[in-house]
Amino acid sequence: MRTRFQQGLDELRQKLLKMGGLAEQAVDRACQAYLDRDLTRCQMVLEGETQINISERQIDELAFDLLAMQQPMAVDLRFILAVTKINADLERVGDQAVNIAERVMDMVSLPAVDLPVDIGRMSAAVSAMVRRSLESFIEAKAELAQAVLEMDNVVDRMRDEAFITLVKTMNERPETTRQALDALLVARNLERVADHATNIAEDVIFWVRGADVRHNAPQEGNGQEQPAQRAASETH
Amino acid sequence: MRTRFQQGLDELRQKLLKMGGLAEQAVDRACQAYLDRDLTRCQMVLEGETQINISERQIDELAFDLLAMQQPMAVDLRFILAVTKINADLERVGDQAVNIAERVMDMVSLPAVDLPVDIGRMSAAVSAMVRRSLESFIEAKAELAQAVLEMDNVVDRMRDEAFITLVKTMNERPETTRQALDALLVARNLERVADHATNIAEDVIFWVRGADVRHNAPQEGNGQEQPAQRAASETH
Repeated sequence: MRTRFQQGLDELRQKLLKMGGLAEQAVDRACQAYLDRDLTRCQMVLEGETQINISERQIDELAFDLLAMQQPMAVDLRFILAVTKINADLERVGDQAVNIAERVMDMVSLPAVDLPVDIGRMSAAVSAMVRRSLESFIEAKAELAQAVLEMDNVVDRMRDEAFITLVKTMNERPETTRQALDALLVARNLERVADHATNIAEDVIFWVRGADVRHNAPQEGNGQEQPAQRAASETH
Repeated sequence: MRTRFQQGLDELRQKLLKMGGLAEQAVDRACQAYLDRDLTRCQMVLEGETQINISERQIDELAFDLLAMQQPMAVDLRFILAVTKINADLERVGDQAVNIAERVMDMVSLPAVDLPVDIGRMSAAVSAMVRRSLESFIEAKAELAQAVLEMDNVVDRMRDEAFITLVKTMNERPETTRQALDALLVARNLERVADHATNIAEDVIFWVRGADVRHNAPQEGNGQEQPAQRAASETH
């Protein structure tokens, strides 16, 4: 029989996944809005932010209640702390989507120009990072989380390339400066989403391995993965 | 007589303050490096990041140990959770300082140009926000934290002004595009530091008032401020 505490942990996990879905959707919508110059989607992103903020609060309150409810075992404690951190990152992913939407709203008043940057490709890579970081959390798999850390290097490189080509464009075609700057800032927002996905992956590794791998700290062995994996698979 | 748990809480508070000092110093150094085109200070910022990352880990581990040590009272639980969130924000303040330092390292290879943006003034405003957000935490004063939230609007306005004047400069003097872009990105980094200070202030209010005021949620009255203030004054 499941205790009220265990049910609370399940609920926390479900709420976080829902929050992750909202954040990912916001980024996808904002990028699609950029590609299509679509103000309707911008509006959807702005409206969706309210729901993301409400979800963040609910998750934090539930985490607090669970910690206050009883003395959690170390593995559950680590899980709850990981959730509160992932929660904060997902909320900020939503903020980045809002930034992109606001940039698009600025951009549509300017003539459309062809720019040497593939925001669609960058957006796809970043969305995949967010999705996989959440998968690594659901499945409590440090290897999946590790793959997210590697994808972050790819996104950083895309951002650097975008930076170089767009500055060149600004110099060669000064009449497109505003649009090139918008594209550059959207690329930076996407890079920041990738950074949040990286933070999430690091938190997952911290939770699963029971060790802190942030900032290249030495990793502990796999011997400790079992408890967290057991905790994670309880809902399945 | 103070219990080991209470001593742990004091240690947590001291470590967080030290971390805050490091993060603030990093931002000040990075901005001074920008103003003076000073690569030595850039190097100091890059080296300082290691210490900030170590501090972040130590604080998280201590928070975890305290939560695992005994069933904390609600007020202590709220304090510990606030510390872990503030900790994450301070680490990211350090990241922004590194971004600024990297921007300066890019910039010094270009000719110095006079730009219509006052990074020094923006930097002073942002540093004050970080400092006051930490003061509001030490003194457990929601009013101080509230003042930080209001300063954030001022910084946002500075960033918007910088954006407008620098884009104008890029159009009028295309030969300064790279430098103007560097200035614009430094302004954005500073705005982001201000956002972290805002997050910290919100966490302080959450802790002091025992209610979540993020995202303009309704605030609870002052009746609940006493316990947190008492907890905060224990070290003094």
